[in-house]
Amino acid sequence: MSDPRPLPMGSTIGILGGGQLGRMLALAAARLGFRTHIYCPDPDSPAFDVTPSRTVAAYDDEQALAVFAARVDVVTYEFENVPARTAAFLGELKPLRPGASALAVAQDRLAEKAFLTVNRVPVAPFAAITDLDRLEAAIDELGTPAVLKTTRLGYDGKGQRIVRNMEEAAHAWEVLSPRPLVLEQFVPFEKEISVVAARGLDGDIATFEAAENVHRDHILKTSTVPATVSRRTAARAGQIAAGIAEALGYVGVLGVEFFVLPGGRLLVNEIAPRVHNSGHWTEAVCVTDQFEQHIRAIAGWPLGDPTRLADVVMENLIGDEIAAIPLGLGVAVRPHAYGKAESRKGRKMGHINRLVLKKRAG
Amino acid sequence: MSDPRPLPMGSTIGILGGGQLGRMLALAAARLGFRTHIYCPDPDSPAFDVTPSRTVAAYDDEQALAVFAARVDVVTYEFENVPARTAAFLGELKPLRPGASALAVAQDRLAEKAFLTVNRVPVAPFAAITDLDRLEAAIDELGTPAVLKTTRLGYDGKGQRIVRNMEEAAHAWEVLSPRPLVLEQFVPFEKEISVVAARGLDGDIATFEAAENVHRDHILKTSTVPATVSRRTAARAGQIAAGIAEALGYVGVLGVEFFVLPGGRLLVNEIAPRVHNSGHWTEAVCVTDQFEQHIRAIAGWPLGDPTRLADVVMENLIGDEIAAIPLGLGVAVRPHAYGKAESRKGRKMGHINRLVLKKRAG
Repeated sequence: MSDPRPLPMGSTIGILGGGQLGRMLALAAARLGFRTHIYCPDPDSPAFDVTPSRTVAAYDDEQALAVFAARVDVVTYEFENVPARTAAFLGELKPLRPGASALAVAQDRLAEKAFLTVNRVPVAPFAAITDLDRLEAAIDELGTPAVLKTTRLGYDGKGQRIVRNMEEAAHAWEVLSPRPLVLEQFVPFEKEISVVAARGLDGDIATFEAAENVHRDHILKTSTVPATVSRRTAARAGQIAAGIAEALGYVGVLGVEFFVLPGGRLLVNEIAPRVHNSGHWTEAVCVTDQFEQHIRAIAGWPLGDPTRLADVVMENLIGDEIAAIPLGLGVAVRPHAYGKAESRKGRKMGHINRLVLKKRAG
Repeated sequence: MSDPRPLPMGSTIGILGGGQLGRMLALAAARLGFRTHIYCPDPDSPAFDVTPSRTVAAYDDEQALAVFAARVDVVTYEFENVPARTAAFLGELKPLRPGASALAVAQDRLAEKAFLTVNRVPVAPFAAITDLDRLEAAIDELGTPAVLKTTRLGYDGKGQRIVRNMEEAAHAWEVLSPRPLVLEQFVPFEKEISVVAARGLDGDIATFEAAENVHRDHILKTSTVPATVSRRTAARAGQIAAGIAEALGYVGVLGVEFFVLPGGRLLVNEIAPRVHNSGHWTEAVCVTDQFEQHIRAIAGWPLGDPTRLADVVMENLIGDEIAAIPLGLGVAVRPHAYGKAESRKGRKMGHINRLVLKKRAG
């Protein structure tokens, strides 16, 4: 369903997923005068603490989905693995933003690479892998090292194996098959950057500045802005992200991850049709942060101003690292805890933004 | 009850009052990983939309208060007119921050002026008024114009009358008595400024910069930072606010309003033992905003960094002015809507912060 009118304040925004991203979307929606309704199978969802309305049900529970749809004015989501049937079902009843096509592209690594390639967006050389023979041929073609990945449901390093020779290839195949797989050439990148872009219902596009990302144990650890790349490279990343949003006819906020090769060449690693961990810095230093920007876009409001006021390093707090927040973190630090009851190894519990303050004139 | 230990994340903060200040406190508490429980007699309280737990009951309902106290770890409030008995009752059961003595001082204009005078804080000349004879004598002493005010429950210009002669004095007496009254000399101030200060459980004090306030129809319309006063005057206002927090043994955030006289002399007009409308600018441009600062203080956490990143004008949106937010407000504007269902004349519905952005080097 499509409705081009701006959503009036006081309307209800339905959010699929009750993790920290849903929680921060709900907080931003509240600041704009919207009500939220969070839908999540997990009764302990952190987003439930900041919303007036919630549904605890499976994503394929069509009865619960229908009741949810009847109570909201627009539907969005905090994760890209919303089942296609769920998206289609809800999209018939209420505006679904971003739309189902963005989900379809982002859910499948092969569809994503095909979409990017068709739109002349550079990606690492890749091959679809359907059997072991095809894998061996692809390794001959792309060379080693290479990375064998499941086409669906991979995140934080899950569902992938580095392959340095045919023996490792056979082992990786054994572990990851029979799921559909893709082999990607391992590109010798110098650094990883990302851009969070937003496209409004009116087609207007706004991009946040590029962030430089460092991972630890396959989980994002820090995002630093500005990134240590040339202005030209940073600008190019913004243009590519904007072009992707445009090509998708996207509505909402979208994260685009890049590999930066020697010389500044960019390859797109991945796109995420949602607010993005590498955009959490926007909360501390931008006029409009990525969460408000997403709500503005899906509500059909004009996009906000992504201007940045200070340099910043965002650091994820994983597992027990969350204990740092109450201890006092020194000056110029802005913390955000997700309110998760249980701190588990590898679980994202919160983040902090360290601002780099210049001495102000005056 | 007093407990010097920092409140662990995941604890529940009880908030008396469910208006926009309670709502913004609850949003800040959520960002620090706390749960909140809002207590308010009004079932349509805007703060109820962003809290997992709520109580709808009168402030003198001791049964409801006892249940509330049992479910929270600390109690705070968003308004200074918490009944003394309510404060005393809750204070026996759980830490009440700020404490009952701050409430007692701030609830009664005469007690407040006495407290300030004892602590050598300059205020406008005043006299307690108990009968018409005393009023006439006070007018002879203080001169006209003067302002006759109720000692309790005045806000936004309610409960006060300007008195230019004995005839107006008699009329004002008729309208405002038999409530306890105070006559204040009308000081020819040049402008009004305010300072929001915070004092932690450890006695640490942090002040935000002074804001310059403009009222319209007795309601705050704009707060501009920096204020157009000398650095010396701004610094002095901060010192006075810090001194008041210290003298009260205060825990939490406190607003102090000043009249600025020709030559820069300062008189304290009023103190508010809570987050303050004239501190809403901190949300858009400070590392730590006044709401987070209050939560940090009452939780026994170290205070945050009040550093300001940009110049700013906060504008209250009164009544139908709230309709401006979804229309698009131009660049460098950060809106906040309170989610109130009904827009009434004179009702604070939201605010916007207009940032003054300097071109950044680099």
